[in-house]
Amino acid sequence: MSSLRHIIETPAKWLDGTGEESEIILSCRVRLARNLDRTPFPHRAKPAAMKKTLASLKEALAECPSMKKAVAIDLGAITPSERMLLLERHLISIDMTQNHKNRALVVLKGEGMSAMINEEDHLRLQSISSGFSAAEAFTRLDRLDGELDDRLDFAFSDTLGYLTACPTNVGTGLRVSAMVHLPGLVHNKDISQVIKGLSNVRLAVRGMYGEGSNAMGNMFQISNSITLGVSEGETVSSLESYLRKVLEFEKKARETLLKKARSLLEDKICRAHGVLKTARLVTSREAMDLMSAVRLGIGLGIITDVSISRLNELLVMIKPLHLQQLHGRPMEPDERDRVRADYIRSRLGGS
Amino acid sequence: MSSLRHIIETPAKWLDGTGEESEIILSCRVRLARNLDRTPFPHRAKPAAMKKTLASLKEALAECPSMKKAVAIDLGAITPSERMLLLERHLISIDMTQNHKNRALVVLKGEGMSAMINEEDHLRLQSISSGFSAAEAFTRLDRLDGELDDRLDFAFSDTLGYLTACPTNVGTGLRVSAMVHLPGLVHNKDISQVIKGLSNVRLAVRGMYGEGSNAMGNMFQISNSITLGVSEGETVSSLESYLRKVLEFEKKARETLLKKARSLLEDKICRAHGVLKTARLVTSREAMDLMSAVRLGIGLGIITDVSISRLNELLVMIKPLHLQQLHGRPMEPDERDRVRADYIRSRLGGS
Repeated sequence: MSSLRHIIETPAKWLDGTGEESEIILSCRVRLARNLDRTPFPHRAKPAAMKKTLASLKEALAECPSMKKAVAIDLGAITPSERMLLLERHLISIDMTQNHKNRALVVLKGEGMSAMINEEDHLRLQSISSGFSAAEAFTRLDRLDGELDDRLDFAFSDTLGYLTACPTNVGTGLRVSAMVHLPGLVHNKDISQVIKGLSNVRLAVRGMYGEGSNAMGNMFQISNSITLGVSEGETVSSLESYLRKVLEFEKKARETLLKKARSLLEDKICRAHGVLKTARLVTSREAMDLMSAVRLGIGLGIITDVSISRLNELLVMIKPLHLQQLHGRPMEPDERDRVRADYIRSRLGGS
Repeated sequence: MSSLRHIIETPAKWLDGTGEESEIILSCRVRLARNLDRTPFPHRAKPAAMKKTLASLKEALAECPSMKKAVAIDLGAITPSERMLLLERHLISIDMTQNHKNRALVVLKGEGMSAMINEEDHLRLQSISSGFSAAEAFTRLDRLDGELDDRLDFAFSDTLGYLTACPTNVGTGLRVSAMVHLPGLVHNKDISQVIKGLSNVRLAVRGMYGEGSNAMGNMFQISNSITLGVSEGETVSSLESYLRKVLEFEKKARETLLKKARSLLEDKICRAHGVLKTARLVTSREAMDLMSAVRLGIGLGIITDVSISRLNELLVMIKPLHLQQLHGRPMEPDERDRVRADYIRSRLGGS
């Protein structure tokens, strides 16, 4: 798949670290769930119906000005490893790595905008951008939504809003989320309090790969859980305002940490950098922890010769399938720990 | 004390790593205990007698061609910190840091040869040289012994040999020891077997600072424990031949380690180097362990940009009194950990 290769060999634009507060807020992601009117949802559809949906959605997307330069990747036409690679890039869901028949990904180069076809819903539109940028990501996706609305009949109820396969998405079909780096709150143990507070205002906090995934390297995903009875604009601005609070809490936690134990913190950060630059074997989990310390070091001005974009790139590139892709063959975990360490050293100017 | 400053600001020659096998055998040290005939041993002598002994021994040493360029340091005339500094350089004993009245150190620049006056014995002559070099160190010290013998009457019994304050030194008064780095044997847990084997042939194994000190950083001191009924030459060549065996065992242990777990070993070594080059706080014990790993890395050809002499220099320079001397003031342990880390980074080209 040359179009697949083209995608995965270009770094995702939203990892470039250019957005506001991108050391703490890596990225904001907006997702819209849409379904075709009078068409069975994928989990109830026969293959022929799925095929038809796939064809008409690919066609509609190809016509949208926003997706003019996108490529379509039929998930049934690529290898299981390649599907895992797309999962590691947050472009398809875990479910789609298994259920791939009559399913496709349509994605812009740079991966700022993409669409999954025949996942849980007929259409899952996604927009990701760097830093504190939920509104920007939403504006972009809203435009695409409008372009598609001109070409398709979406399943819509005047009382409920957009209809979706799962009731939790009915209404706006909108999920806004932010990937945030909260080492300060983890370290001072306020994180569970913050998570509890967010859940009280109906915001969910999860690990880096969504529902059911653990928080590694002090990375969390914060997202809205309500889609019914609120407007899209309210959803975005509410998430942004709570995100602003989390950002404040994290910064305050870091200040306290620095005041209480600057030397220990500097030592931990600098050692983490040293280990990443010299280790010959490193597991994914340890790498995530070490990179979290280095990222914090950048935020505090302690580390000055590593960029956020380099760390963001590593977040993706050290994942198993990306490492295998780099070496063109499957590898046992031990060997992966070795090539992961090699890759990190090469990208951080280690020895 | 400008002569003291002169000594401690020059690196000890025996740390220069130029001797044979100096990665594993840091140095060989030879010590001769000598006492003046018909003169009370220091622990039984009155101050006036000690004073007289001190004067005559200083005079005799000053006349010896071997010690022509030596400086004499009266231990009662320097500060407690300065005495600790001399202890850290292996130039005086722990006892002499406390009991310093009418005691002196006479030492050559480069510290290859020195004499303690009025320690346990009237005279403790010491010669240290780099690497596998017991014979060389002995030859040098034997010459000095001869030069002194021409000038002094030593307490000597035709049946027992040289008489000393402690019966364990009677006979040759000779102690030959080697400081050895045995990470392979420690790692494969054969070290206790080796220590047992050496004690069976009457060789003692101790930590880096002699009797009662713990082995840190996989450093051990191996020395003869018999001075009676053997010649000086036999003592030296016997220690050398067992040392040769220990060297073989250590090399074999390393080969096995490499065969069984090369990646893990490389990882440990390179990380240790990385941590030394980046840490902001490091205790003496941790530094010793990390430096042991780096030293092993040099021995195995894994680390190529650090020299043995640089590591040897650090062994001494990171000790508490040397760090305080460098900064010109007493320090709390926390601060020492910081300046120790700073010093190591500066000497290893860290960041």
